Parts: sequence; C-alpha cells; structure tokens
Amino acid sequence: MSQQPAKPKTAITPTRAEDYPEWYLQVIKAADLAENSPVRGCMVIKPWGYALWENIQRDLDAKFKATGHVNAYFPLFIPMSYLQKEAQHVEGFAKECAVVTHSRLEAGPDGKLVPAGPLEEPLIVRPTSETIIGETYSKWVQSYRDLPILINQWANVVRWEMRTRLFLRTAEFLWQEGHTVHATEKEAMEETVRMLEVYADFAENHMAMPVIKGTKTSGERFPGAVETFCIEAMMQDRKALQAGTSHYLGQNFSKSCNIRFQDEGGTLQYAHTTSWGVSTRLIGGMIMTHADDDGLIAPPRLAPQHAVIIPIYKDDAGRAEVLAYCKTLQQELVAKSFHGRPLTVTIDDRDLRGGEKMWGWIKKGVPLRIEVGPRDIAAGVAMVARRDNGEKAAVPRAELVAGIAERLQAIQDNLLARARAFQAAHTKTIDTFEELKAYFAPKNSERPEIHGGFALCHWNGSAEVEKRLKEELKVTIRCIPIDAPAEAGKCVVTGEPSARRVVMAKAY
Amino acid sequence: MSQQPAKPKTAITPTRAEDYPEWYLQVIKAADLAENSPVRGCMVIKPWGYALWENIQRDLDAKFKATGHVNAYFPLFIPMSYLQKEAQHVEGFAKECAVVTHSRLEAGPDGKLVPAGPLEEPLIVRPTSETIIGETYSKWVQSYRDLPILINQWANVVRWEMRTRLFLRTAEFLWQEGHTVHATEKEAMEETVRMLEVYADFAENHMAMPVIKGTKTSGERFPGAVETFCIEAMMQDRKALQAGTSHYLGQNFSKSCNIRFQDEGGTLQYAHTTSWGVSTRLIGGMIMTHADDDGLIAPPRLAPQHAVIIPIYKDDAGRAEVLAYCKTLQQELVAKSFHGRPLTVTIDDRDLRGGEKMWGWIKKGVPLRIEVGPRDIAAGVAMVARRDNGEKAAVPRAELVAGIAERLQAIQDNLLARARAFQAAHTKTIDTFEELKAYFAPKNSERPEIHGGFALCHWNGSAEVEKRLKEELKVTIRCIPIDAPAEAGKCVVTGEPSARRVVMAKAY
Repeated sequence: MSQQPAKPKTAITPTRAEDYPEWYLQVIKAADLAENSPVRGCMVIKPWGYALWENIQRDLDAKFKATGHVNAYFPLFIPMSYLQKEAQHVEGFAKECAVVTHSRLEAGPDGKLVPAGPLEEPLIVRPTSETIIGETYSKWVQSYRDLPILINQWANVVRWEMRTRLFLRTAEFLWQEGHTVHATEKEAMEETVRMLEVYADFAENHMAMPVIKGTKTSGERFPGAVETFCIEAMMQDRKALQAGTSHYLGQNFSKSCNIRFQDEGGTLQYAHTTSWGVSTRLIGGMIMTHADDDGLIAPPRLAPQHAVIIPIYKDDAGRAEVLAYCKTLQQELVAKSFHGRPLTVTIDDRDLRGGEKMWGWIKKGVPLRIEVGPRDIAAGVAMVARRDNGEKAAVPRAELVAGIAERLQAIQDNLLARARAFQAAHTKTIDTFEELKAYFAPKNSERPEIHGGFALCHWNGSAEVEKRLKEELKVTIRCIPIDAPAEAGKCVVTGEPSARRVVMAKAY
Repeated sequence: MSQQPAKPKTAITPTRAEDYPEWYLQVIKAADLAENSPVRGCMVIKPWGYALWENIQRDLDAKFKATGHVNAYFPLFIPMSYLQKEAQHVEGFAKECAVVTHSRLEAGPDGKLVPAGPLEEPLIVRPTSETIIGETYSKWVQSYRDLPILINQWANVVRWEMRTRLFLRTAEFLWQEGHTVHATEKEAMEETVRMLEVYADFAENHMAMPVIKGTKTSGERFPGAVETFCIEAMMQDRKALQAGTSHYLGQNFSKSCNIRFQDEGGTLQYAHTTSWGVSTRLIGGMIMTHADDDGLIAPPRLAPQHAVIIPIYKDDAGRAEVLAYCKTLQQELVAKSFHGRPLTVTIDDRDLRGGEKMWGWIKKGVPLRIEVGPRDIAAGVAMVARRDNGEKAAVPRAELVAGIAERLQAIQDNLLARARAFQAAHTKTIDTFEELKAYFAPKNSERPEIHGGFALCHWNGSAEVEKRLKEELKVTIRCIPIDAPAEAGKCVVTGEPSARRVVMAKAY
C-alpha cells in the first residue's frame, strides 16, 4: 500500500460550495497573492499577485497608448478646499478619506511622538484626482488648439472603507485614472465610450472575463458625472462585480475647476471632460471568475508564469540527466512568445516531494505544468498538464515547443468560453416581481450567495423602484446594457411601461 | 531682407553662465517636463518628463529582475509607533513627514469642511519603507529556507522638505526601493554592492552620466544603516549630485522589526537586511549632466522619442508628396530598434513655421531631427541633425534607415565621453587646506556655483574635519571611493595620516 497521505479532495478548504467568501480568501492565501497589512484596510500585494498587476498594467498601458494617450503624474495630496468645489463630488468622497493635518513628529512630554507642525489647510490623500488634475488643466488649456488633452496616470489612491476585502475593497489600492479634456460633448462622449470598449476588450480577451457593457442609473453614477459607463462581470457566486468605469463628466468639473478655452470663433467656452479607471480590484474579479476548488487559475495572457517544468528523478545521476534535458527544453520554450510577451518558464528543482510541488503550482494557477522524467526523455516526450481542465497527456517535445502558443491560447479560449457559459446559464429574463423575488431568494438559508444570478428586467426608470429592489431583495440595477436591443415591456415592479431591459443583480 | 526675427543666441534664457539655477528651471519649462503643483512642494510630472521616468523604470526594472528580484507593493501608510522602533531612523525622518490624523471630513458650523473621525494612532505617509516592510518580513521569515528575500517596490514617498526644487527635491517623489533579507552579513553586503553596481551601470550606460562609486562617511549615512554606498555624479555647475544609494542595514532593522530565522543548525538568528533606491531625482541629474543653453539633451536610450521627422513644403501639392515620403520613412524607422526598444519616431506636421518647430524639438532634447523637403526627396536623402553636437548632414535614405541604431549609439557615446571629460577636467587632487579653500572659493562673488569641482583629498576620518569643511567651505565628503587605490597621505585639514583619498565637493 502507498505510504503517501490520501490526496485531499480539493487543495482549497473550504470549497466554493461550502463557503464562498472564505474560499476566496483561501485561494489568495494558497496562491500567495496578497495579505492584510498591519495598517487597517491596507493590503500587501505579494510578488505573485503583483506580477499579475504588472501584466495587467503592461497590456492596458499599451492599449491606452494605442488610443492616443500619454502618462503623467499628479500630486498624491489634494487641498481640502478643492474637494468642495464640486458639490456631488465632495458628498461622495468626504465620508471616507485620509486627512493629513501635520507635517512632522516631535517627542511629547512622555518621550512618545506626537504630530506637530500643523498645516494651514489640511490635505486629503487622493481618493480620485478629478479636482487636482482639473485645477492643473485649467492652466494648460487656453485655446481649442490645446485640446484634446489625453492623459492617464498610474497611481495609488485611498478611500477609508470600513469593510475591506483583499483586492475587492481596500483602503489603499492601485489603479489607473484617465483624465481627458475635449472641446465638444460629442468628442468627450466618444472618448468615454472608446475607453469603455478598451476595458471590455481587455476584460474579455486578456482576463477571459466576459462583461456586460452599460450605463449606470443616476443613483449609481460617479459623484459629479453626467453619465457613467461600466463593465459588469459575473462572479462564480453569481454576484456582479463592477470591473471598470468610464465617466462623461460634462462641464461639471470644467466649471468647478475653470477649464475654459477660446473656440475657433474666439468665444470662451467650458470644456467637456471625462475620467475612467480600473484598479487592483480586477485581480479579485479574475480570481472569482476562474479559480476553482484547487486554487487560482491564471489566464495565460496575464499569468506571472506561462509554464513550469518539474524534473522527476530518483538519484543524483538521474538528476543530472533530467535537469540538463529540462534546461534545454526551457531554453527552447522561452525563445517563444505568446501575444508578444516572451514565454516565462521556470524549472522547479526544489528539494520537495513531487506531489507537494505539483499542488503548489496548481494552487498558484500556472497554466501548464510540464513533467519530465527519465522515461519521458527516453520516449522523447514530456507530460503536459493543463491547469484549466486538468487534462494531462504525453506530448512529443518538438510538438510541445512548436505549438506552445496555440496550447496557451486554447486555455485562454476555454476559460473565456467557460465563463461565458456560466454567465449565460445564470442570466434570466424575468417579467414578474414574484419570479424576481424567487430568483434572488437564497437557495439555502445559511448561504445567501447561492441565488439566481443576473436578471434581465424591465424598469420604469425610477429611483423608488431601485430603492425597493435594494431593501427587499438586496439587488441593484447593475447597468442599462448598451448592446441590448430596445424592447417594449412593463416594469417588473410597477408594471409601468419600459423601453428596454436592465441588468439586476446582487453585487460586490 | 528676411522678415524672420533675428534668431536668439540661445533657446534658453538665462544661459548656464548667466544664472545656472534659473537656467535649470527654464530647461524644464522649455522641454515641458514638469511644473510646480498647487500643493506645496509637490510637482506635476508632465507627459514628456514622465516618459523619461517610464524609460528609466523599464530599464532599471529589467536589471532588477535580471539580478533575481521581484516586485511587490506595501502600504502607503506607516503607523507612527513603527517609526520609533529604530532610533536613528526616527531621528532621520520624524522632522519632515506628512501625518494622517483623521479618516473623514464633515461640515463644520460654517458649512466648511473640517477633519473628523480622528484615528487612534496617527499614520505617517511613508518617507521610506524599512519599518513597514520589515514588520511584514518578520512574519514571512521563519527558517533559512525562506531566505534570501529579494523584493523591490515602485512607489511614491513623501518627505516634507522645506526647500523644494523640481525633480531634485520635492515633497512627494517617485522612486523604487529594494528591500532584501539575507542569512549572513556576507550575502547582504554582496547584495548591497551588487545593486550599487547596477545603479552605476545604469547611470553610465543608460543615462550617459559618469558616477563615482563609494561609501558615505558615518555622518552622511542613511538613518539606521551600517554602511551606505552611493553613486555621485558631477553636474555642469561642478556640484555633486547623489544619484542613488544602496544600504547595508546590518541587523538594525531585523532587531527592531524582529526578523529572525532558524539557521541550518536550528539556532534562531537575526537576519541581515539591505535597502537601495533611486528616484525621479535622476531626471534632474540627467538634465544637469547633458542639457545646454538650447535646452534638454536626452540620451537616446532614455529619450521619449528617438527622432522626429519634419516635413518641409510650400503648398498642398508639395505637402502630399512630402508627407507620403515621410510616412514610409517613419514606417521603416519604427521597424528598427535601439537596445531592444522599438524606435519611436513621430512626424511633426503641425501648422507652425519651420523654425518654431525646429526649436521646439531642440528644447525637448530629441536626439535626431530629420528634415525632408522636395529637394531631399529628389536627391534620395534626408537632412539629419544631431541634438548633442548640432551636426547636420544630408544622409542617403537607405543609409539613414540601416544605420539608425549606430547613429543613436554615437550620440549616446558622445554624451558619456563629454560628461566624463567634464568630470575629469573639474576633478583635482589637492593636498593643502589653502589650495582646497581657493578651489572651492566662488570665482565670482555673485555666482557661488562657479568653483573648482571635485577635490580628491586625504582625510583623517573624523567628524570634526567634516564639520569644518561644511562650515568654512560649504563642502561635504561625497564619498570614499571604492575603486580608488589605497594611498598613504596626510589629512588635508589636520595633516594626520590617511590611507586613501575621499571626494570632497559642494552638493545638491
């Protein structure tokens, strides 16, 4: 009989079915992505998690540049008075912001440090940068010739959230924020939609995370925006995750920040501005879209490593032969690339048992595991295991090397197809309030996350209905889809006429 | 007679000779690199300046990864009590730090916002991250098997400087900070020196900025370090700029943060740590090493753009022909690369006079300007102008395209050679205090920056001599060079015996 301990049924405990929120945290822990820091609400993004962010940054940054944007950097701090310039904006952010009031520390009477050097005006650690950037743009913009301004910033921001959750909601998070200025509403709206499309393209084709593009209801808009566009994804607990937003800000911020330009006729006009952003929250979305009960599944385009080679041998002589073989295999693989990124392939020669190694890489979500032992070498093959579906097969070495990009693309495609099928399976057209109630009712009294999914319903356009949905069903209107056809119908709550369906869901 | 205004003698006013500090600011303005923000001491890094930083980041990051490091991200905030854990460290940073004391804003009696939600413990906006990272590492390190930890972070930091200067000294700045943990002093010291070498290589071969590698005197060490290594560069006003530092922290932080590991024999030991960093200050160093009285000169490896193509035509028919030619030339050039980076080449087809365009690109420091007019097209050439030395020549198109990388490398090499010659010309071996005094005496009473340069002198190793140099000559010991041979001599101030020369200079 084998002396190995019985293989656990799953590498992650609890499973998704047992306790979804805790499963999420355990996947992050098992993949070594991030952890809570000693500072309330702030996380430490560990190397494996940060590598995902680096890949997200690189791919998004290329898309921003391809659409004509350049990067710049604006101050971390915002004078308190700036926030007040836009009434809705301050309403939205004043309740949760870190306030800097002093500029040094000095020893108090008991020798302990106390804040000293009080500032004349407190500074806010940016929760978002519309006001400080708008103030700067007001100096840059004089004439129509100065427009458009198409700038993005990669930065950290702080929102003093009370309930935090790794990646999904943290007091400090990393993001990018685009801030653009245009002469006309038309151009600004085109920019807003262009960046929404960039986000949707990135979500689907890089993250393999299908999204619904839409606009927010007025109650869910960014504070100060005229229109907020968003991409909404479905997590495996069937809840919605807002994964990115693009705002048409109209002239609200140009008026509060005084961004004016002389048009071609010499008339002074207020500009039209936009802002758009995605954050480290995307990593949370990626985890909850693809990970399974054995841990993370990284889509190949964003995986910190495309593949790992695991040498298998019994003694020192075998070790030398197998390692030499693995090294040349590695060299051949890293000479290949996948979507323009050179392949990252490591050899795991740590002094650990094979099972321990294998499960480590499974939990970290590496797309391909390549096992090489003396018998494989003799047969000219390697054992290749896919993380996404568990398939394992002996593949001739030359075929493995030549076809590595196709193999990775097959995984990428499978992840997207699977996530699309999941979303479709849990999206339902609903026309009565009774059915809607039943759809969102927890299927198990202890497991509120197990419910229907996305409901496509008619809505009368009123905030009262949104309030009732929230109070009675804990459901919000995630978006008014922009790609759905117009369709006459009756509001699922009031029976009043409606011209199109909206997406209702419980949400993160 | 020409109706053009007389060409100004220089594009930058004042010149370096007229007013060096103001020249520096005017170069930044003319190249559109950065500006002061409405927030005291914080700058806005504008797109052209940020593109330099992106190139610095990309090249350095590749070097960090090639030496085994990975990136991660740690919190912006540090609990006040953490700073106090290392006595010298708090001494060094408490006097200038942004202190967060509140977590929200609320309307005061007069309707204006006031800070609310006081924090139990104030938070410091990181001036550097040894304490918060050390605290985290203490949880990660248990055994010798967990070592080394080789992590870098790209981040913003805040030091409440009273006198700020764009890029050189700002309240907020961007930087990278490496933080590593090792089992032994030997390994930690090797790491410290390895990163010093990475910085020196980067400064010389990417920035074309020659540096002297050395150690700091105890008075100039990083607060909490056992040994601080640095690279020192000479600016064109002959002052020294500390361009990067690498610290061996000994067990100081591992003791204050409790980073302990079980060694192979099972004994619990304190680890040895290092930290190392460079910042956006490098951009200031690059400007002051290469820029001239016509503006910025960007070394080709870091230039936001390698070349600009300027079409020259008289009418619409000419425009179409010239532009079509420029576009195919651009396509051929961007298919080339320079040190692994695809060439960036734009066509400047703005509706501006030729001279205005040309001077714009000169001030922005683009390495090569390529002018194309109908006569050039007919002759199969382009007029190519080098920014570094002003040389302008007609170059056959095929030769221009085929040899573009060599042409850029020639500029890179010339910039380094020129800066090396400048440093050598203004570095002097000095053996008497009288001569030292004369060397550092301002050559013009109104222009304290015009003085000797670097002095290579013997020093008795005492803080008293350093104090006297500072008070009497405004001179500091920049470093004790690590590459200079041992040489017996006498202290330039006291005549006491000394085993090696040190570098004395005025400094930024």
